[in-house]
Amino acid sequence: MNKRPLILVTNDDGISAPGIRKLIRIMNTIGDVVVVAPDSPQSGMGHAITIDSTLACDQIKIDQGPQKEYQCSGTPADCVKMAVREVLKKKPDLCVSGINHGSNSSISVIYSGTMSAAIEAGIEGIPAIGFSLLDYSLDAKFDHLEEDVLKITKNVLENGLPKGVVLNVNFPKTEELFKGIKICRQAKGNWVEDFDKRVNPMGKEYYWLTGKFVNEDNGEDTDEWALANNYVSIVPTQFDLTAHHFIQHLNSWDL
Amino acid sequence: MNKRPLILVTNDDGISAPGIRKLIRIMNTIGDVVVVAPDSPQSGMGHAITIDSTLACDQIKIDQGPQKEYQCSGTPADCVKMAVREVLKKKPDLCVSGINHGSNSSISVIYSGTMSAAIEAGIEGIPAIGFSLLDYSLDAKFDHLEEDVLKITKNVLENGLPKGVVLNVNFPKTEELFKGIKICRQAKGNWVEDFDKRVNPMGKEYYWLTGKFVNEDNGEDTDEWALANNYVSIVPTQFDLTAHHFIQHLNSWDL
Repeated sequence: MNKRPLILVTNDDGISAPGIRKLIRIMNTIGDVVVVAPDSPQSGMGHAITIDSTLACDQIKIDQGPQKEYQCSGTPADCVKMAVREVLKKKPDLCVSGINHGSNSSISVIYSGTMSAAIEAGIEGIPAIGFSLLDYSLDAKFDHLEEDVLKITKNVLENGLPKGVVLNVNFPKTEELFKGIKICRQAKGNWVEDFDKRVNPMGKEYYWLTGKFVNEDNGEDTDEWALANNYVSIVPTQFDLTAHHFIQHLNSWDL
Repeated sequence: MNKRPLILVTNDDGISAPGIRKLIRIMNTIGDVVVVAPDSPQSGMGHAITIDSTLACDQIKIDQGPQKEYQCSGTPADCVKMAVREVLKKKPDLCVSGINHGSNSSISVIYSGTMSAAIEAGIEGIPAIGFSLLDYSLDAKFDHLEEDVLKITKNVLENGLPKGVVLNVNFPKTEELFKGIKICRQAKGNWVEDFDKRVNPMGKEYYWLTGKFVNEDNGEDTDEWALANNYVSIVPTQFDLTAHHFIQHLNSWDL
């Protein structure tokens, strides 16, 4: 790519989260950056879009960087749609989402606002990467991710991605140096919920959703294995959800 | 299955929508039914879950049927989690979601609250089916779907589904008799958005998200082809999003 690429940056933790501020600074070194990100945290939004209410999208200035920035009242998927149709009025060369404060490995990809933005860009035919760090803290440190974020991003800009594939990148939480980058499959696992039941001052019961991730997958080719062993994980992620392997069997049913 | 199966019914249009009321009546003929469904419409919620606010879940009685019913303030995925952990405190034999007022074929599966409930059940290891009718109207007619809903449901109860696979069933909108049921793959397509920009009474701009589905897939083995040709479509749907076919190539990158 000869000229500087046009890079769309978004996330699900909201436009002022430290993770996206770091990602913007990294992207400013290699491209022309436009940010369209949620005006408030949108974690756990999955691939939600805003159908039943209105959307706001306003230009703002948060720091002295060269990027253009817009905050949007919608979900991460809304932000990508808004960026392509209304803000840029064209497709950027790349969309990066994150850096998320918290893991989006294994089944969490399904619930992830970070990855829904990357997937929405992929649906539009835009090469896209979601970046997440396994540290939920707002004080999470991101400086040591810079080199790998750049390396992965430059590879995507140079090599492209096939239609229908985006990348889900997760960084381990560790004090040590990463051992390297591993290409992985999504580990089989799920969240086992525990609803914390409480009673409000009026005597009515309500719940908080809490949960614990359970990895059911012993494979050493999974994202969970890579992260537990101090590797950066990349899972190529698709949005054709067809279980192609089961089509032939289904045709034998009495339907 | 010798004894009557325990069937969880949910949806994304809300517990009082005609589509779910019909699905409850159909399921009452073959099993013991528990309904845990959103207390208000949740269309377009994708696989969102409620992390940052509280949830209510209250038993209610809407009609004279034998089913037990609970309305929940959360998303469709929340409803399934709430049903398994708090209401039933065990896994039902089957989860059915719908009947949705509107299509969930092709890429719409990604944005669909109806299918997110079925997928959430699948993640829990519960056989699950999402049913949708290509008619967004609240006056949509569902009576003629009964035979096929029963046939598909009984097949799932008798044959089971492999781990990691749920069914996405869509019914065409037509005055004619259906030509039959087709096992399909998800058509490649996307929504092309048009943001309807308006100005509020205070002079501030805001947007409504609108869009038009564009089918980019000429295959005759897709859900879009089946529905356009008056067949009921069934797409076996998975939640392992790994693009397995791209892993080998990614390993050749300079990372």
